[in-house]
Amino acid sequence: MGKARMEAFSDGVIAVIITIMVLEMKVPHGAELAALAPLLPVFLAYVLSFLYVGIYWNNHHHMLHACSKVSGPVLWANLHLLFWLSLIPFATGWMGENHFAALPTALYGAVLLMAAIAYWILQQRIIASQGADSLLRRAVGGDWKGKVSPVIYVIAILAAFKAEWLAQALYFAVALIWLVPDKRIENALKQKEG
Amino acid sequence: MGKARMEAFSDGVIAVIITIMVLEMKVPHGAELAALAPLLPVFLAYVLSFLYVGIYWNNHHHMLHACSKVSGPVLWANLHLLFWLSLIPFATGWMGENHFAALPTALYGAVLLMAAIAYWILQQRIIASQGADSLLRRAVGGDWKGKVSPVIYVIAILAAFKAEWLAQALYFAVALIWLVPDKRIENALKQKEG
Amino acid sequence: MGKARMEAFSDGVIAVIITIMVLEMKVPHGAELAALAPLLPVFLAYVLSFLYVGIYWNNHHHMLHACSKVSGPVLWANLHLLFWLSLIPFATGWMGENHFAALPTALYGAVLLMAAIAYWILQQRIIASQGADSLLRRAVGGDWKGKVSPVIYVIAILAAFKAEWLAQALYFAVALIWLVPDKRIENALKQKEG
Amino acid sequence: MGKARMEAFSDGVIAVIITIMVLEMKVPHGAELAALAPLLPVFLAYVLSFLYVGIYWNNHHHMLHACSKVSGPVLWANLHLLFWLSLIPFATGWMGENHFAALPTALYGAVLLMAAIAYWILQQRIIASQGADSLLRRAVGGDWKGKVSPVIYVIAILAAFKAEWLAQALYFAVALIWLVPDKRIENALKQKEG
Repeated sequence: MGKARMEAFSDGVIAVIITIMVLEMKVPHGAELAALAPLLPVFLAYVLSFLYVGIYWNNHHHMLHACSKVSGPVLWANLHLLFWLSLIPFATGWMGENHFAALPTALYGAVLLMAAIAYWILQQRIIASQGADSLLRRAVGGDWKGKVSPVIYVIAILAAFKAEWLAQALYFAVALIWLVPDKRIENALKQKEG
Repeated sequence: MGKARMEAFSDGVIAVIITIMVLEMKVPHGAELAALAPLLPVFLAYVLSFLYVGIYWNNHHHMLHACSKVSGPVLWANLHLLFWLSLIPFATGWMGENHFAALPTALYGAVLLMAAIAYWILQQRIIASQGADSLLRRAVGGDWKGKVSPVIYVIAILAAFKAEWLAQALYFAVALIWLVPDKRIENALKQKEG
Repeated sequence: MGKARMEAFSDGVIAVIITIMVLEMKVPHGAELAALAPLLPVFLAYVLSFLYVGIYWNNHHHMLHACSKVSGPVLWANLHLLFWLSLIPFATGWMGENHFAALPTALYGAVLLMAAIAYWILQQRIIASQGADSLLRRAVGGDWKGKVSPVIYVIAILAAFKAEWLAQALYFAVALIWLVPDKRIENALKQKEG
Repeated sequence: MGKARMEAFSDGVIAVIITIMVLEMKVPHGAELAALAPLLPVFLAYVLSFLYVGIYWNNHHHMLHACSKVSGPVLWANLHLLFWLSLIPFATGWMGENHFAALPTALYGAVLLMAAIAYWILQQRIIASQGADSLLRRAVGGDWKGKVSPVIYVIAILAAFKAEWLAQALYFAVALIWLVPDKRIENALKQKEG
């Protein structure tokens, strides 16, 4: 079964997620700078989440490059990932509106953690569907980013209750780790062609 | 007439439906756990509806695999299905906000029932457009899931006024029935190729 | 220049329009039937608009079948059509919330009128881009539906201030005229192939 | 790596942006003309932004025509552009609700300025990825529109604090400059084929 429609549906969902997040920035009534000021944390939370959703879209795009057909379990693992991503606008809004308070910051981390686990499950389902000579398995290799990220999220969730800024710094650090383009899948694809 | 654009439009509508449902979970103002607690039923209703919309997308995807061209009646039967699916966010929000009260629970079931009927009509229109040797008719076979689901919905709608939890359990049971991947269409496609 | 991306963008915009309209049906706070009752006109307005947006998508789909490449003016004529369609959710919400009062009913008709004019302009731009032997011109023929609809809209807008129900009946009548599948484009395509 | 999915995702995001902007036009409660009047500036701001987002979609569409594959930096430059475009609904809503007051007008210009810079960066990344014989570089040529627009935006931002109407006129003027279809890319493509 082709992957085109799963890609199209995922693109649609992620496109809506990344765009409706901006609706959490409610238009203020006043026209002066003071009216805009309370929106600053909401805006910063939006930037962080835009980065994360962008990274997920980018990696999803790359992962499906190393995959030619999709099975039933892959479709469901993909919907599971989209479910956790769909909670990012809510978690972002709650964290932004409460100026990065402890509990909303921890919940934000929990949603990121679940999305990371869902992404890993999707990756494993694709590898399993590809059999022993999986192109994606070779491409992913040791997958240190995929292993380190959940650990950092757990630390950040715990840290949120002691020092919110530390949790935020850790979320940002994980985003930076992933922002560096991932050459593994591209290299594996090139090797296969070569 | 090709089916690509009908697929693309359906994917777009379903992607928006599944994502705007999350907007019914209004960001609470407080940052403590007590502020989050009233959202629990809304969240549970969201999970159930995400599952249902995911199942519809998945089955829609499968059904169109056994279909190569679409006629005018098929386009309209598809829009009819999308209409009922588009009411799921409203029904979900009403049911969640009212903590699974009787009437909202019954209305939720009524929307599921109408969507199931619309799905069945779409299936019949495609089978009719394929003529005597319909691939989809062979794939669907006895279609016990399609026949049993509306019956359970009707029971659940009636049960909602006596015991809301029973209606919810029945909605969840139908979702589980459909979650099991449907091998019929894949098998029929394989047989055709073999 | 290919038409695929213009189709994809139009599908995306129309899919969002048809889905966010449902957000105008605000979830009521009570769980009893009395809480739902005020939503009935909003729901009826939603049904009418869903029908109209569905018809536009359907006809847009058909029209682009008789068209293989798109020029700059066609792209802009298409955006112009999407602009008027994008106002349908607002007009629907205003009309529904005010129980089909005179002015909202007239505004609704004005939006439909502008969308019909925009559709006609798009059709003319495509015909112009196809040159003397335009497939779409032959397909459209006398285009009595396209000529009659704006006239009925104008009558309905004027009627809205005397008898709102008459305006609604006229809007519904135009929808019915268009619901009947249009064989012209399919026939012209078949003739060309034959 | 193919450009198809980046196009599809961009189309999705831009389609949602252009459509949710209309949600800033809140349905008024009264049914008389006086209830509609306060929405006039919101509507005018919507028209301007619809024009801008339409122009961006159009130009994005054209630019990717002169581009056959996309690299990692191009994907990120594209997401960066989408980020600034995603702020247009907020800036539009704030400007419209405050009747084109000074600060919201300046912020609107700042978002347009950042989007223009992001568009230029994306263009440069594509040119860089195409190497010495870049088709897009030849197509873009002197790029006077791309150079003049940010300058006008800066003037408009400063003008907003002295005379809001001047800033609006400048925003509108830039839109008109871009509305004129850009023959450069089409010509370069034709030359290549010829």
